[in-house]
Amino acid sequence: MNSIFILVPIASILALVFAWIFFKSMMKNSEGTDRMKEIAQYVRDGAMAYLKRQYKVVGIVFVVLFILLSIMAFFKVQNPFVPIAFITGGFFSGLCGFLGMKTATFASARTAHGASQSLNKGLQVAFRSGAVMGLVVVGFALLDIAAWYLFLSEIVFTPEHMTSGLHFLGLEFVHAGTTEHQKLVEITTTMLTFGMGASTQALFARVGGGIYTKAADVGADLVGKVEAGIPEDDPRNPATIADNVGDNVGDVAGMGADLYESYAGSILATAALGAALPAIALEKTGITAIQAVTAPMIVAAMGIILSIVGIYMVRTKESATQKNLLNALLLGTGGSSVLILLAMVGLAYTGWITWGVFGAVVIGLAAGVIIGQATEYYTSDEYGPTKGIAKQAQQGPATTIIDGIAVGMGSTWIPVVTIVLGIMGAFWAAGGGSEFAMGVYGIGFAAVGMLSTLGITLATDAFGPIADNAGGNAEMSELPKEVRERTDALDMLGNTTAATGKGFAIGSAALTAMALISAYMEEVRLWFGKIAKAGEGFITKGEYIFYNDVAPAVHDGMKAVKISAASVKDFSAAYDITLFNPLFLGGLFLGSMMAFLFSAMTMKAVGRAAGAMVEEVRRQFREIKGILDGTGTPEYAKCVEISTKGAQREMLVPSLVAIIVPVIVGAAMGVAGVIGLLAGGLTAGFTLAVFMNNAGGAWDNAKKFIEKGNYGGKGSEAHKAGVVGDTVGDPFKDTSGPSLNILIKLMTMVSVVMAGLTVTLSLL
Amino acid sequence: MNSIFILVPIASILALVFAWIFFKSMMKNSEGTDRMKEIAQYVRDGAMAYLKRQYKVVGIVFVVLFILLSIMAFFKVQNPFVPIAFITGGFFSGLCGFLGMKTATFASARTAHGASQSLNKGLQVAFRSGAVMGLVVVGFALLDIAAWYLFLSEIVFTPEHMTSGLHFLGLEFVHAGTTEHQKLVEITTTMLTFGMGASTQALFARVGGGIYTKAADVGADLVGKVEAGIPEDDPRNPATIADNVGDNVGDVAGMGADLYESYAGSILATAALGAALPAIALEKTGITAIQAVTAPMIVAAMGIILSIVGIYMVRTKESATQKNLLNALLLGTGGSSVLILLAMVGLAYTGWITWGVFGAVVIGLAAGVIIGQATEYYTSDEYGPTKGIAKQAQQGPATTIIDGIAVGMGSTWIPVVTIVLGIMGAFWAAGGGSEFAMGVYGIGFAAVGMLSTLGITLATDAFGPIADNAGGNAEMSELPKEVRERTDALDMLGNTTAATGKGFAIGSAALTAMALISAYMEEVRLWFGKIAKAGEGFITKGEYIFYNDVAPAVHDGMKAVKISAASVKDFSAAYDITLFNPLFLGGLFLGSMMAFLFSAMTMKAVGRAAGAMVEEVRRQFREIKGILDGTGTPEYAKCVEISTKGAQREMLVPSLVAIIVPVIVGAAMGVAGVIGLLAGGLTAGFTLAVFMNNAGGAWDNAKKFIEKGNYGGKGSEAHKAGVVGDTVGDPFKDTSGPSLNILIKLMTMVSVVMAGLTVTLSLL
Repeated sequence: MNSIFILVPIASILALVFAWIFFKSMMKNSEGTDRMKEIAQYVRDGAMAYLKRQYKVVGIVFVVLFILLSIMAFFKVQNPFVPIAFITGGFFSGLCGFLGMKTATFASARTAHGASQSLNKGLQVAFRSGAVMGLVVVGFALLDIAAWYLFLSEIVFTPEHMTSGLHFLGLEFVHAGTTEHQKLVEITTTMLTFGMGASTQALFARVGGGIYTKAADVGADLVGKVEAGIPEDDPRNPATIADNVGDNVGDVAGMGADLYESYAGSILATAALGAALPAIALEKTGITAIQAVTAPMIVAAMGIILSIVGIYMVRTKESATQKNLLNALLLGTGGSSVLILLAMVGLAYTGWITWGVFGAVVIGLAAGVIIGQATEYYTSDEYGPTKGIAKQAQQGPATTIIDGIAVGMGSTWIPVVTIVLGIMGAFWAAGGGSEFAMGVYGIGFAAVGMLSTLGITLATDAFGPIADNAGGNAEMSELPKEVRERTDALDMLGNTTAATGKGFAIGSAALTAMALISAYMEEVRLWFGKIAKAGEGFITKGEYIFYNDVAPAVHDGMKAVKISAASVKDFSAAYDITLFNPLFLGGLFLGSMMAFLFSAMTMKAVGRAAGAMVEEVRRQFREIKGILDGTGTPEYAKCVEISTKGAQREMLVPSLVAIIVPVIVGAAMGVAGVIGLLAGGLTAGFTLAVFMNNAGGAWDNAKKFIEKGNYGGKGSEAHKAGVVGDTVGDPFKDTSGPSLNILIKLMTMVSVVMAGLTVTLSLL
Repeated sequence: MNSIFILVPIASILALVFAWIFFKSMMKNSEGTDRMKEIAQYVRDGAMAYLKRQYKVVGIVFVVLFILLSIMAFFKVQNPFVPIAFITGGFFSGLCGFLGMKTATFASARTAHGASQSLNKGLQVAFRSGAVMGLVVVGFALLDIAAWYLFLSEIVFTPEHMTSGLHFLGLEFVHAGTTEHQKLVEITTTMLTFGMGASTQALFARVGGGIYTKAADVGADLVGKVEAGIPEDDPRNPATIADNVGDNVGDVAGMGADLYESYAGSILATAALGAALPAIALEKTGITAIQAVTAPMIVAAMGIILSIVGIYMVRTKESATQKNLLNALLLGTGGSSVLILLAMVGLAYTGWITWGVFGAVVIGLAAGVIIGQATEYYTSDEYGPTKGIAKQAQQGPATTIIDGIAVGMGSTWIPVVTIVLGIMGAFWAAGGGSEFAMGVYGIGFAAVGMLSTLGITLATDAFGPIADNAGGNAEMSELPKEVRERTDALDMLGNTTAATGKGFAIGSAALTAMALISAYMEEVRLWFGKIAKAGEGFITKGEYIFYNDVAPAVHDGMKAVKISAASVKDFSAAYDITLFNPLFLGGLFLGSMMAFLFSAMTMKAVGRAAGAMVEEVRRQFREIKGILDGTGTPEYAKCVEISTKGAQREMLVPSLVAIIVPVIVGAAMGVAGVIGLLAGGLTAGFTLAVFMNNAGGAWDNAKKFIEKGNYGGKGSEAHKAGVVGDTVGDPFKDTSGPSLNILIKLMTMVSVVMAGLTVTLSLL
């Protein structure tokens, strides 16, 4: 272990310590009146009940996958650490969701209470709670990465094991004569499995949470607002608690698991690409292989420390205006970003990373800012597109929908062009156009750079939903109107600061996916090398060959299968990923289709779950007397139960499809088909996700724009049309759209983990 | 000219002769009452006024492109026949639209009059009019192809020119020492430009017609049906004539130009792939190069003759029921398909095509049938998906939209999987997995086979809109209710038979696009060969080198530009179309984005044009007294004018974007970027098109299902929601969706034509 690497475990533990400090300081605040406490307790119970059930379902899936991976390890198309790495990734991702949500549910009443004192007080409680979430995510992610890296590099791959070999349960883990380079490749590709665990957990959290929150939201709106005519978050609405629970399980727990996966994925993919750098590239740049592998972790560690610094920079006077608060937040996030760039200048100066890689990170950050601004332009009611939708609302719901879809589809061009320029720019900056592997490493590093300050950017992202929930609490507790106004102001503040954060999240997801696809190719090359070397034209089926440079002993009882000499020799012919390979083009088609099919399934799921909610709310209005005049109490728990059940039932199929399809495509269409699937999924999925996110955001804000009194204001025909747009946009922006990013990465992670199987099958 | 090729000009002329016969026999029918004649005249005038204006705008675009291509030819990055071929493609495509629409506008009143006598009589008039359209399209397309092929092969490339060379305007067209193989390659790639002309015309026709018809439709519905509460096609609605004109310019002229382009494109692409077959592949299969090139034309010629036979097979007794009529139509289309397969068995038996190619065609036909059936399943109100949308309509417009989008997105899987299996199947059948070029040729041939009976399938496609228009005429002329019922029955009959036709159109578009992309790569290889050979490491800028095997004389006064030895030698490195080329991945992103951006632009265009129409109709209701009680006459012409102007203004930008983007990408990102653009455009565009077409179709039929009396029937809340869905679906299924197929092919055609420029720029 080189000395500076010590920063990695230290920073991750530091993140958890500060998360604990912020949590404790938040908990010191009062939850306000008894009514506020009661409502917060309802939401907390609902949210925890949901998470418990979710983890039970996901737990079963994890056990099944663990067993499958173990079987693969037993048959030696997988390495024996893989199943365990998979489980830890899932576990920590889930833990982050749990802790983040626990914090958020404790924070909502406290934020409302804070807001009843002053805007600034409300901000402090909400922002510090968001920071808990941010620091928990980066802390656990980096801790898990550091632990695995140290375990594999210091305990498994000790110098004596590398010289004499290491056996365990009859398997040879470390072959005699392992080189330093082989060691790093094995370590990083094993650690990628940890990413698959995180992605699996994240997809379930996003899809399940997205279905839950939108089913409750749509159900509450359609019956409560539209049919019964009572306002948002009114305690008379039976679905209102479920709606507030939904904000927590969807926007907080879902987002936490999502970003955990992005953050870990970008670091792991870049480390794997670093390990795959050819000796000639390292020689040219003067960087060691260990430096290339650990650099993304070290940048992440520095990012954590600077995020904590940034969080402390968010200070305002007690009498702060909205503008002061915004500036304070921007100072925190912007300050952290500038500091991390300075820190990276230091790394480049001392030769840990190349200046080209530094350039790639700058390009990545610029791309993130541009995408964030473009998102802001297309979805904020201060600009033409959203105003245009509001104007079309005067003609009724149909033109509202048509215009919103057109705005969403049209909004794809800036993010896509930016990503294309960003990928090309990072590639050229890091690789100079000739060093291919270095260029791809640069693309991965750009994503790491964008996400390095996630500790603070996630805080600015997460405090919006917390403020939103605080508003719900204030409404239900019938606090003075000004409290609700303040929480709304905080919510809006969150939306503004979150724009750049979202840009970073979207941009880094595309870059990470690109890096992961490259890592997949490396993995395929590795397996091909292992198998090709195994028997000089013979592959020993079932023989687990740990190193590509070492011919293994042939286990007895296994059937030897001959590979044609041509396929062994001509790797590039076997894996010629050109457009002319119809398998590749077929894969492209399937990847594109997967994005649409997955969106269809999640939207259908929301529809079905919302339908059940609508019926339950109608039933309660019908059967429980006196709900509307306030003399009867709605059965909140029933609605919570319905959303929970619906989400659990509905999240399973789309998530499993995302896991199974890459395996099937790999088995049926080989490596070319898989690469096509991933490339098609990435490009079409990214575009579709931007479309759905932006259309949903624009509809939401167009409705709010009308509610501000434009085109007739609340209750007008335009407003009714705006509500239709908003309702359609809900599953777009909160279920299907955000899930697509995870879908892309999960499919890639699954492919990476299954690469051994795919290669073996394609050679049989 | 080999003897059997004579079939090609003969069949094309035969098609035109029979079109003339059918036209004359249709014209013999009476147009009915004076009122019917008057209305037909209104529609005819409006449609012709529109086409005139459309051709004026398109004419300007063609002149500009002609000049640009001529400049390129002058600077020798283009061959001198290219500008002329481009113009003829556009001209004939436009002519087909004109004649088809003229026929349709003459037929509507006659069909209504026929339907007032019997269902069978109505069918005969409508179907024969549709057949005029079908035969005109295939006749002119094949005539143009035959003429160019004969001109180039018999007049330009005469044996003496091929030995001694041919000069014209100071340029050497035919170099001394041209081989037979070189001749065929030059001829077929030149003819592809004819396809670019057809595609350009088709895109304008589809986009312009689509905007026109939906602006009129949405305008008529929103104000007439929803606000004023008068029924469809009511003469009191000022936009009703424009609406009927729209059916003609969108559904008839637009569809005609579209299928002209598909038909010509599939034949030309396959001929080009036939010319590119390597000598070794020809040797193995015993097919000559000329046979490979002319076979798709001959199959098309036989298809024409068998289509005419099929048209005569559509006969029924005077007292025919709806079921009899359906069977008669299916006998005609199915019979033609079976006969063409038998004819191809003959070709395979005599060694003109391989049995593998025959197998590819069978696979293509099967894929077309499956896609057609899947489309039927997802959009017909007899099945779950559309019924589900109708059910959701009870909850209001929002759930109607969500469910429709989910159905549309979910419906992509069968067509995509079918196309993937079809492409792979055709490739393997024709090439056996090892003969790459033969496999790709098989993919192209599958498209030719699917479209070979277009003469009759287009007739079954086109008679639906004619019957629809006849219904409009009957309504406005206040004919007895049973007439409208009969035309509605005919319209529905058309929808049923059109399902398979649509499947063929969609499937063949994907296969043709795939074949065109392969042809593009051939073109690039050709140009690269030309330039690389030119000066042994030196490229003579501006030197038009006609043959890749002949080193040309270096013209004086031209600057010689050195290419690095590496790039000349290593073609595969320069054009390595692997996923790892970030330019390729960037292209994929951009292609995906283009599909969304183009859809956004066309939807926005419909929105703007419809908005203008809404205001005009409202103005007329307000200002012209007595419209609603029938004492005032609406100003129909004003609405026609507004739709015409709107369509012309709005169609320009999206169409030009489709032409310009591939050129820019080619210049900035080279061949890899272009291939990425085309592959991304094809895969994402195809999926998006299926989504939009099917969602639109399902909404339309869900509304009709409610109108049949389900969920409260007409006037219920569910019906109102259904109308919203239908209105949103209108631009989906009639503007954006159908335009996407042409977009994909036009971008590819442009790339093929610009290949010389792209290669030259990338080597400088």
